[in-house]
Amino acid sequence: MTTIDRALIDLNADLGEGFGHWRLTDDEALLSVVTSANVACGLHAGDAVTMRRVCEVAAERGVAIGAHVGYRDLAGFGRRAMDVPPDELAAETAYQIGALEVFARAAGSRVSYVKPHGALYNRAARDPEQAGAVVAGVVLTGMPLPVLGLPGSQLHEAAGAAGLPVVAEAFADRAYTPDGTLLPRGREGAVITDPELVVRRSVGIARDGRVTSAEGTTVAVRARSLCVHGDTPGATDLARHVRAGLAAAGIGLEPFAR
Amino acid sequence: MTTIDRALIDLNADLGEGFGHWRLTDDEALLSVVTSANVACGLHAGDAVTMRRVCEVAAERGVAIGAHVGYRDLAGFGRRAMDVPPDELAAETAYQIGALEVFARAAGSRVSYVKPHGALYNRAARDPEQAGAVVAGVVLTGMPLPVLGLPGSQLHEAAGAAGLPVVAEAFADRAYTPDGTLLPRGREGAVITDPELVVRRSVGIARDGRVTSAEGTTVAVRARSLCVHGDTPGATDLARHVRAGLAAAGIGLEPFAR
Amino acid sequence: MTTIDRALIDLNADLGEGFGHWRLTDDEALLSVVTSANVACGLHAGDAVTMRRVCEVAAERGVAIGAHVGYRDLAGFGRRAMDVPPDELAAETAYQIGALEVFARAAGSRVSYVKPHGALYNRAARDPEQAGAVVAGVVLTGMPLPVLGLPGSQLHEAAGAAGLPVVAEAFADRAYTPDGTLLPRGREGAVITDPELVVRRSVGIARDGRVTSAEGTTVAVRARSLCVHGDTPGATDLARHVRAGLAAAGIGLEPFAR
Amino acid sequence: MTTIDRALIDLNADLGEGFGHWRLTDDEALLSVVTSANVACGLHAGDAVTMRRVCEVAAERGVAIGAHVGYRDLAGFGRRAMDVPPDELAAETAYQIGALEVFARAAGSRVSYVKPHGALYNRAARDPEQAGAVVAGVVLTGMPLPVLGLPGSQLHEAAGAAGLPVVAEAFADRAYTPDGTLLPRGREGAVITDPELVVRRSVGIARDGRVTSAEGTTVAVRARSLCVHGDTPGATDLARHVRAGLAAAGIGLEPFAR
Repeated sequence: MTTIDRALIDLNADLGEGFGHWRLTDDEALLSVVTSANVACGLHAGDAVTMRRVCEVAAERGVAIGAHVGYRDLAGFGRRAMDVPPDELAAETAYQIGALEVFARAAGSRVSYVKPHGALYNRAARDPEQAGAVVAGVVLTGMPLPVLGLPGSQLHEAAGAAGLPVVAEAFADRAYTPDGTLLPRGREGAVITDPELVVRRSVGIARDGRVTSAEGTTVAVRARSLCVHGDTPGATDLARHVRAGLAAAGIGLEPFAR
Repeated sequence: MTTIDRALIDLNADLGEGFGHWRLTDDEALLSVVTSANVACGLHAGDAVTMRRVCEVAAERGVAIGAHVGYRDLAGFGRRAMDVPPDELAAETAYQIGALEVFARAAGSRVSYVKPHGALYNRAARDPEQAGAVVAGVVLTGMPLPVLGLPGSQLHEAAGAAGLPVVAEAFADRAYTPDGTLLPRGREGAVITDPELVVRRSVGIARDGRVTSAEGTTVAVRARSLCVHGDTPGATDLARHVRAGLAAAGIGLEPFAR
Repeated sequence: MTTIDRALIDLNADLGEGFGHWRLTDDEALLSVVTSANVACGLHAGDAVTMRRVCEVAAERGVAIGAHVGYRDLAGFGRRAMDVPPDELAAETAYQIGALEVFARAAGSRVSYVKPHGALYNRAARDPEQAGAVVAGVVLTGMPLPVLGLPGSQLHEAAGAAGLPVVAEAFADRAYTPDGTLLPRGREGAVITDPELVVRRSVGIARDGRVTSAEGTTVAVRARSLCVHGDTPGATDLARHVRAGLAAAGIGLEPFAR
Repeated sequence: MTTIDRALIDLNADLGEGFGHWRLTDDEALLSVVTSANVACGLHAGDAVTMRRVCEVAAERGVAIGAHVGYRDLAGFGRRAMDVPPDELAAETAYQIGALEVFARAAGSRVSYVKPHGALYNRAARDPEQAGAVVAGVVLTGMPLPVLGLPGSQLHEAAGAAGLPVVAEAFADRAYTPDGTLLPRGREGAVITDPELVVRRSVGIARDGRVTSAEGTTVAVRARSLCVHGDTPGATDLARHVRAGLAAAGIGLEPFAR
């Protein structure tokens, strides 16, 4: 008798992105879809009541809790690059993880990974200084947390150099170039909206580690997690669709972190 | 051979009360005077870089680190009473403690007590709902932290009911009524500025548990900690003076929490 | 030939209550329903881009622009009473009006009235100090703006004493006591949700200055403006319904301010 | 009889840079030294009470009031470059000017110029997009305000193109390169601290339009205003010194704007 390795993937999404009276993500619905929740920690979005509630539901449903650390910029939702000095960025990263850890523990879980949000995600992918500052912030917490991000990014370089685990993610609704990088958002066809195609690409990445590039070639995309979006009602439906498609293809859905 | 119980007192002060480019307290100087540091956690004052630095120096000097939790009100420095709903106040209390804990641990120490700041201190002394919310926030963290405050306050009532240790503090630079409560700040003679008198009162409280009231009677004031102020240069000098006076009187200076 | 006085009413609603990436009110839809827009000015909600856009659409459609001044409390959406000192409250009121005036003028209109938001509305109705501070802020601007609020409120007292026009508003979806005050929100039946009843009450207030109280008696409610709500999709539909019902009853819809 | 043109210069400094309980600049002292006050408007620093007070004292002493517009970044004091989209930056510029105008008018004066603060000053000097957005914000206010900045900057380009007056400023305490640009702050000798030398350079710029470069050559520096700093006690003394030195050299001190 032979053991067949079953393909495994994680689905991650941004959650808890409201602030006070304002809501953005349908946290309740998304927590039935994803296996990892990137939880906003109060600087670009997120408030203490929301963080607490998201952690409670996540823990109940076995969803891993990640610190979605961002710039201190509520007005810009953390989507504007900022020249934050490294010592501030490191300390603010630790601050956010520490605040979230309290709610994760209160819910019987733990913060089990870190992923930067928005403009910090993009900046830390390319900028060694900010990448290093985010990693320094994780190190400061004393928790050896995996860092979720783009393979080959400066963030992953810095995390690896600091001895932190790195976890690669891919985007099934984004076009890839033949060399395996994301086609920039401004470019035609950069975002894929056909649900069937997104599901097919999700399965391709999860099962075969391959996706068809914008130019029709096959490219290798190794990822332990797929990022799905949840900030519009349509996006939540699409995420549900992706989950169902992966299950139908016999792919296991499991958090990468425990 | 007989053991003589030596009188012991703690000196606490508010620290880290700057924000970003702004400074208020002379943290470096105060950390050579006090044995317990009430550290602002970012909502009414305090930023991540300052929190980190204060924790490092406090840990180096054996000063206990307390979470100085406050209202989310940078513009008002947490000095304006706010009708914050209990679930928000509880969650924000836990958020602040969690954020500070990261820096305390990174410095090799721990958050070892909680004290509300400014208007929240005053409100939680009288208002059972807000007192209960602060205590609920401490309970949420899972850390059995002592709560520093006024003996007989609603805050101490609520903490005791929740099984948290309570630690009483007194104010050597404030006049007391004959029944042992503080004379309200607006009243004549409410604040005592003569340094010698403040030192004498400090020694009286620490050694004898007694102070002379505004009406000349002797009142019992039991306190394990004396609150000194540090938000003006003169105040730091006065705090130094109090420390020297206590030492000269043979009173031990030790944090109440470890 | 006789001139028949046609009953006139104004419909006001809170608008521009998003912040940055977050949205709350359907401003576009509401600006087709109301005749006066209470525009959030950035302290409890509202950002500069939204303020500009709301002013442009309001000006295009002949909707009067009012400064919806609130507490500096984004996290609490201005719904938590705060003990703001009078000089701060006055200066922040003027600040908000001045900021909005720029966008009103740029759109070819002007700020033409002031109405406090949320907890400040409630507090200034009862608290002479905060009422006086809001009015002092209006006076500071040098614009003799009408103050929209509850008849008999401290806010109207203070505005009248300062020589500012006062404009009374009523709530067709709220129950009144027999003496003409609002039944507190917590009480059973305080909020009326049956659309037909709300329309009937609107017409009764606008045409006859009368409404049926919670105890069945008829009470006089004089109002030049009816407040409608727009922070839920259902609320916008109800507002549309009220407008249609008033028009069908031959009541003129006009801003009270020009 | 001949009219001798007397050399004229303006002294500008940043004022009102506190926030709530925090203070930075000695506004009272500086308002006796400068002829133009760059007043923080609440986004990077400044609160309504401070804005009001600075405007009152400025108006009393004939000091011109300028809007010191900055990024929305209290935590970073507006000193961190931010990728703010142009429509937001334009609207926030107008918002700040409008808010300040209320206090300037209440004091019997007017906002009479605009100068960006900190990182926005530096970014708008080089980045045509942000320069254009700041200018668009000024245009939106409908006030034809002069824009104070570096000659040859993108900000001045954009202001000129929009038909706004431009006013050049120089820095007597900064080294210039032989081609008339500022030596970057990081470089040795970039900041001049010898008071006598700063005074001599101030007089040279004001009277002769010339200064000695870092390499010893003479360079032309045409400026209608000299920027002095006031965020340290020493800086205020230096500013006083510069003022006295200019007066002693027979140079008139006058605001450029009225």
